[in-house]
Amino acid sequence: MNPILVENTRGGVVESFHRGSICVVDKQGKIVFSLGNISQISFPRSALKFFQHIPLLISGAFDKFGFTEEELALMCGSHNGELMHIEQVKKMLATLDFSGDNLQCGAQQPTHKKDFIRLIKANEEPTSLHNNCSGKHSGFLAYCKFNNLSTTDYLNPEHLLHQEIKRITSLFYELPEEELVLGVDGCSAPIFGMPLYNQAIAYKNLICPEKFNNPEITKACNRIVKAVTTYPMMVAGTKRYCTDLMSVTKGRIVGKTGADGVYSLAIPEKEWGIAIKIDDGKMGPQYQVAHQLLKELELLSTNEIEQLEKYGNTSIINFAGNEVGDTHSVVLNIKN
Amino acid sequence: MNPILVENTRGGVVESFHRGSICVVDKQGKIVFSLGNISQISFPRSALKFFQHIPLLISGAFDKFGFTEEELALMCGSHNGELMHIEQVKKMLATLDFSGDNLQCGAQQPTHKKDFIRLIKANEEPTSLHNNCSGKHSGFLAYCKFNNLSTTDYLNPEHLLHQEIKRITSLFYELPEEELVLGVDGCSAPIFGMPLYNQAIAYKNLICPEKFNNPEITKACNRIVKAVTTYPMMVAGTKRYCTDLMSVTKGRIVGKTGADGVYSLAIPEKEWGIAIKIDDGKMGPQYQVAHQLLKELELLSTNEIEQLEKYGNTSIINFAGNEVGDTHSVVLNIKN
Repeated sequence: MNPILVENTRGGVVESFHRGSICVVDKQGKIVFSLGNISQISFPRSALKFFQHIPLLISGAFDKFGFTEEELALMCGSHNGELMHIEQVKKMLATLDFSGDNLQCGAQQPTHKKDFIRLIKANEEPTSLHNNCSGKHSGFLAYCKFNNLSTTDYLNPEHLLHQEIKRITSLFYELPEEELVLGVDGCSAPIFGMPLYNQAIAYKNLICPEKFNNPEITKACNRIVKAVTTYPMMVAGTKRYCTDLMSVTKGRIVGKTGADGVYSLAIPEKEWGIAIKIDDGKMGPQYQVAHQLLKELELLSTNEIEQLEKYGNTSIINFAGNEVGDTHSVVLNIKN
Repeated sequence: MNPILVENTRGGVVESFHRGSICVVDKQGKIVFSLGNISQISFPRSALKFFQHIPLLISGAFDKFGFTEEELALMCGSHNGELMHIEQVKKMLATLDFSGDNLQCGAQQPTHKKDFIRLIKANEEPTSLHNNCSGKHSGFLAYCKFNNLSTTDYLNPEHLLHQEIKRITSLFYELPEEELVLGVDGCSAPIFGMPLYNQAIAYKNLICPEKFNNPEITKACNRIVKAVTTYPMMVAGTKRYCTDLMSVTKGRIVGKTGADGVYSLAIPEKEWGIAIKIDDGKMGPQYQVAHQLLKELELLSTNEIEQLEKYGNTSIINFAGNEVGDTHSVVLNIKN
């Protein structure tokens, strides 16, 4: 039974709360800190994206098509569907002689409200381009095209692309392929599930890939980490925790959200990997927990804490603009 | 620690889940069935609305202004902000020589997507009229006007209206006034919190009000129950559980949702009251639990179950329209 991590109050009492689990591992895979059941299986969802493009980088496809570091960040991102994201995805697809019609991620209305409203006013329907995973799917298509693999069933779990991603997932998450749970993601891509401990391990391996003794893998990891920390707007977008965390900390901390209450982090200066999962899957509490955890691990400066505090403990404001309570992460009581 | 009530699966494993508590009481206040901690304090939120208008009915204000049964349902409702709701609220306010400007509930975009899009396309901003509580606030204003009370600070907890509502809340929820937790609702109205057990008791008392030995109170309760079951579209709206539950069961079951994962029910044929609270406050799981509970209590016919099943156990469909898992209430194992 996982502990309460986030509480929402009203009238001075806790009205609702979110339970979850946390795992922090060091370079050797030793647990630095944990809360809750870290053997519980869940899906990293979009936090898997960083690893899903390692085959693309290693294969040479990425460089062959002349993609940029900014585009790598977008491939690894769960973007807001803002204009800047859509335009960049269109450009990537054009490089492949493809268009939005080749994406099989499904139409999603832009996460960012301004862009959602812009579409409605223009009498336009959201398309696959607006899907937060359209960058990832463009990367998938690039891999397939380069390797002369089918681009019409590129989401089939049996497709060589996903066999390759499974191999990489098994390597980074340190779990035999047969123990990975196969699911289908919101964007229809195959997704793998595993214990939370292994999700923390994978993010540690992302920044400590030398153990795999494979210069190509090390290079791919370094490029991914550099891309997402250099172009955090491509990883998420306006008013998003991933973007603000990586902007504010200037790449000292690598963070990636996943659907259903997932957050994964890598801390290069400590060589730590971190995984957070909110039991009930609500989006939001995982950022509050990440913020609290980073504070208690003393990984944020006072100034950084201030800039990110809006993702941590905030007031609950009602329709009329009145404060009616607050939402806060509980103190995690980390013994440093 | 409350039990898991709803599970969401992906790839054959439970990816996220919702805990909560349930309480069913009979006419004597005896517990027929319960799960979890029914002493846990929470706010009934909009499930308090039925009781918030008892003073309006008893005072004679409701009839003095010539309001209809349909309007009573709207006052007791948490509406979608559909055109039919807005027009009716405007009409009620006009009866009082008021307009949307007198409402202090705050602007809320219509819950119903079609109406939300209609507003955007018309270049209109949502107003207080669209707030799901605008019917309730119109009832508040009617009470104040009739009783020559201030209509400018009608949301002040010290206002006579809310002192009267507190008295009624104390009576129906069977808890001394000083034990009611005062909070502020999403619409800025005062709201009272109490144990889940008492929330079940109140809904039992709604259909068994004779114990209060007050013909005016009995009459008010009967009118409220008749209004909401006769005009369920006013209580919620298109594609809403409250509306569909009361339409499908033709008034045999009275149900009202509340924000933050609340559901309250009254079962006239059994003289039972029921309260459900989802720990994490997510909206949706409480309907799944209500549906499962009503099934296990054998209160729905096969045909009714079928018509309401979409609120119970359903597939999780991703952006591309593929089934990627399901969401279901667990079996509650009620021993009849």
